[in-house]
Amino acid sequence: MPGWRRGSGSGWLTAEYGMLPASTGDRKARDITRGKLDGRSSEIQRLIGRSLRAIVDLGALGERTLWIDCDVLTADGGTRCASICGGYIALELAVRRLMAEGLLDETPIRDAVAAVSVGIVAGESRLDLAYLEDSRADADMNVVVNGRGELIEVQATAEDRSFGRAQFDELLDLALAGTQALLELQATALAAA
Amino acid sequence: MPGWRRGSGSGWLTAEYGMLPASTGDRKARDITRGKLDGRSSEIQRLIGRSLRAIVDLGALGERTLWIDCDVLTADGGTRCASICGGYIALELAVRRLMAEGLLDETPIRDAVAAVSVGIVAGESRLDLAYLEDSRADADMNVVVNGRGELIEVQATAEDRSFGRAQFDELLDLALAGTQALLELQATALAAA
Amino acid sequence: MPGWRRGSGSGWLTAEYGMLPASTGDRKARDITRGKLDGRSSEIQRLIGRSLRAIVDLGALGERTLWIDCDVLTADGGTRCASICGGYIALELAVRRLMAEGLLDETPIRDAVAAVSVGIVAGESRLDLAYLEDSRADADMNVVVNGRGELIEVQATAEDRSFGRAQFDELLDLALAGTQALLELQATALAAA
Amino acid sequence: MPGWRRGSGSGWLTAEYGMLPASTGDRKARDITRGKLDGRSSEIQRLIGRSLRAIVDLGALGERTLWIDCDVLTADGGTRCASICGGYIALELAVRRLMAEGLLDETPIRDAVAAVSVGIVAGESRLDLAYLEDSRADADMNVVVNGRGELIEVQATAEDRSFGRAQFDELLDLALAGTQALLELQATALAAA
Amino acid sequence: MPGWRRGSGSGWLTAEYGMLPASTGDRKARDITRGKLDGRSSEIQRLIGRSLRAIVDLGALGERTLWIDCDVLTADGGTRCASICGGYIALELAVRRLMAEGLLDETPIRDAVAAVSVGIVAGESRLDLAYLEDSRADADMNVVVNGRGELIEVQATAEDRSFGRAQFDELLDLALAGTQALLELQATALAAA
Amino acid sequence: MPGWRRGSGSGWLTAEYGMLPASTGDRKARDITRGKLDGRSSEIQRLIGRSLRAIVDLGALGERTLWIDCDVLTADGGTRCASICGGYIALELAVRRLMAEGLLDETPIRDAVAAVSVGIVAGESRLDLAYLEDSRADADMNVVVNGRGELIEVQATAEDRSFGRAQFDELLDLALAGTQALLELQATALAAA
Repeated sequence: MPGWRRGSGSGWLTAEYGMLPASTGDRKARDITRGKLDGRSSEIQRLIGRSLRAIVDLGALGERTLWIDCDVLTADGGTRCASICGGYIALELAVRRLMAEGLLDETPIRDAVAAVSVGIVAGESRLDLAYLEDSRADADMNVVVNGRGELIEVQATAEDRSFGRAQFDELLDLALAGTQALLELQATALAAA
Repeated sequence: MPGWRRGSGSGWLTAEYGMLPASTGDRKARDITRGKLDGRSSEIQRLIGRSLRAIVDLGALGERTLWIDCDVLTADGGTRCASICGGYIALELAVRRLMAEGLLDETPIRDAVAAVSVGIVAGESRLDLAYLEDSRADADMNVVVNGRGELIEVQATAEDRSFGRAQFDELLDLALAGTQALLELQATALAAA
Repeated sequence: MPGWRRGSGSGWLTAEYGMLPASTGDRKARDITRGKLDGRSSEIQRLIGRSLRAIVDLGALGERTLWIDCDVLTADGGTRCASICGGYIALELAVRRLMAEGLLDETPIRDAVAAVSVGIVAGESRLDLAYLEDSRADADMNVVVNGRGELIEVQATAEDRSFGRAQFDELLDLALAGTQALLELQATALAAA
Repeated sequence: MPGWRRGSGSGWLTAEYGMLPASTGDRKARDITRGKLDGRSSEIQRLIGRSLRAIVDLGALGERTLWIDCDVLTADGGTRCASICGGYIALELAVRRLMAEGLLDETPIRDAVAAVSVGIVAGESRLDLAYLEDSRADADMNVVVNGRGELIEVQATAEDRSFGRAQFDELLDLALAGTQALLELQATALAAA
Repeated sequence: MPGWRRGSGSGWLTAEYGMLPASTGDRKARDITRGKLDGRSSEIQRLIGRSLRAIVDLGALGERTLWIDCDVLTADGGTRCASICGGYIALELAVRRLMAEGLLDETPIRDAVAAVSVGIVAGESRLDLAYLEDSRADADMNVVVNGRGELIEVQATAEDRSFGRAQFDELLDLALAGTQALLELQATALAAA
Repeated sequence: MPGWRRGSGSGWLTAEYGMLPASTGDRKARDITRGKLDGRSSEIQRLIGRSLRAIVDLGALGERTLWIDCDVLTADGGTRCASICGGYIALELAVRRLMAEGLLDETPIRDAVAAVSVGIVAGESRLDLAYLEDSRADADMNVVVNGRGELIEVQATAEDRSFGRAQFDELLDLALAGTQALLELQATALAAA
């Protein structure tokens, strides 16, 4: 695990992702019972970590590690994007507490972050797919943006059929509109917290 | 590991990716010595597997598994894309041998596949980054296309700075031009083999 | 993992127990990150499994495995006893569903089961310790009973000071009264479900 | 593994338990061949460690770890209790050697400890069950006491049939008589050593 | 683990080697606590297995696996050779039992086997080194022979100083005389058993 | 892993050995996929390490570890001996570089080292067996010598038939002649490098 080095003056943010066995329709075997981390889970927690680190000034964080735990209690499509959105809220709340406790003078968070999934179902572009749509999707794209709507991460995968440049652009437009709405919801939630 | 089930009539293609300890400038510790597969390696071999399966008809392959081994002897940027390009050539050669040995009547390969990395270095879009460029890049994108130039997989990551939609489009254009050139080189190589 | 053998005509019930990293005051490291199941977790899930199997007729269950997942979202003392009580409710609901789906003709559940923790805090016997009490307890006892109030499992541990026979008897009396109340609550809940 | 922290001034005692493959009637597979510690072994070595630590003043031990190895060469019922009794003798001998070598000024051992198993076989309470009795027992109880006969640990499990309070009390009486006899045998053995 | 295949008509013999933590002067950490088999132990158990298989007709053994467990209770040099000698006796006794139980009609053992260590200590060749000699040895050789005194395995290692051909020959002569004596002792022991 | 201790003034040399999946005729499963190091690979890398450490003055190396990676790209018999010969060349080149960079004042290498395999095929002694010969060999011997032709390591194994003293001597003579030729080739290569 990468982290901060003593004396570097700089910190680290790491994310962990897991699905409870009962979170899915059919029971998902526990990683620890199978003895190793699922490749998919490992990939997802790397994505969440990169996305959140993209908006944090690790130098301003100081020599400490922030752990963002994303445990899925009920899964219905798009859990990696939900983890990034919720992880950002948790990060804000954690930093507020560190500041309230006098452990940080100023916030190391430099921006907001939001993520959404989009996909092509029956030839049509759809936003924030539910599990049933996701499993029938021809293609699937996860888009992570910062508070100014600039791209942090794009991951697009053709499940069954490849997709053309036009369809790709349409999906990306849809995702950017979706993340814009999510950023507003997050700001409202944080103002109310 | 997912695979085919006896009696399903259908097969599987799996890819494995590894870097030799001496393939990089500073020696890379061996996965088996650390006791588990590197998260990055796991992510890469899942990408290679998905990209190659996207052009194979697993039903036409019959009840067998094809293993595509991508072992990096010397690394200089873009090893995951090079693995997809080289893996495709290896796949074609393997299928030709199976057909020559009478184990397959017709090829289960339905298309070509090529991949290339692009990135933003010092504000400028560049194709197929070398390691020194890659380590200085602000953003990095891997693009996988099929023989008709349609998208199979897009993975874009902002390393240090987020990027706007315009820059994203410019990178994708550059990548599509690059994969076009690679598809031609692959066709020439396969014709000569 | 023990289980049923094909052709034996008999089934199995297994329990898994885990604490979410955020369930405790100080974050608990994830088992999969440490690479192996915590000794304490392993001990607890063996206890839950034995307690539930004590009231199930595995022959009447038929050749299937029931998995009871006990995932602790918020911990405040006595999680192993809460897991047995909640696990019993989950078991009843699961069997009702199997019967509704026509997969079982009659219930293989032969009795109820309840469990409670008791302890000595500052020289005084207390029922169902909260975490703050538990951490200051001199001794700690977990008692599992069936629907007739007979003992299925007793586990008593002196944390800091040994305890005499009289104190042991007092604790056991207190636990038996507590489980009696829990059995009534469970019956009410199941009647309402 | 828990242990002492440098500068704490305090030590630790840990126990390890293992059965040789040939110790049982049917060969027992080696933990290392199966790749992980048996749940039952882990549970037993935690019990042995707690029981021995209950009579040791870890502060008086100083910053060192005592390892008590309990390797079963021939098993015939009650190996966990035999490990506690034998582990106590080994602990006394180890401390005597540390004192003779001038590494400890005074003993950190504050009391004696003994353990015995009791069970119900064919409706009858029996002390220190042999393997054949143990496998036919309806219930099984392990009792650990200190030198004053006070309880350190009680673990009772109904194997096939639950047991009432009266039977439980009878078993506990029997166990307390048994540990009294063991404490005398231990004292005699230590006086002779 | 290699083994026999169902329907092959042929069996397998496998050996496992382990040192108890208390078998050595300084306590040896348990393999299972360190989480993996010690490289030295793995090498030794492969040697024992090869040596014993060299005298067994696996076809005549039938479709079964013989496990030879070599657990070192007290170590004082040459444990791998002692394991081969003792393993051979255990193998003979096991086969006698299988024949007495009617599970084998005739013995699959085709020959005897014996092993001894020799070494150069202070410039002098010595037979069957004790631990204190072994740790001061310049070179160390393990020799395994069959009942006719022919070589099955030779493993010679220069610990601190290389050795010339003459010294090698002298060590081998010494070992062959030693194994001759061991073969006679084994025959006497088996006749008496 | 053994290594140097801080403040000891002394270093360490370690070797790692691995075969690429495609290095053999039939694909060899990757160690990391099977989750643990192959017993054979572990044995070989211990041999290579011992052989190279035999010619290095670890005190003169200083507090550093040299890693010699032996990755087999194409296997055709005798890969452990080829690894020792090639590892020695790599070691010389690495030390030259450390000296050129001013990190070492003088070479810690005290001698040359070479290794060769010999075997009995169809009753005849052969030098440096190819894979097809090796798989048909009745016996197999690996011999490691230093620059003066003195023995560092001898490992002889009867695969199918034991061998007599005379045959053993003949094989050893053949190996010593072979290593003499290899030492000359190595010296020539190093002079040219």
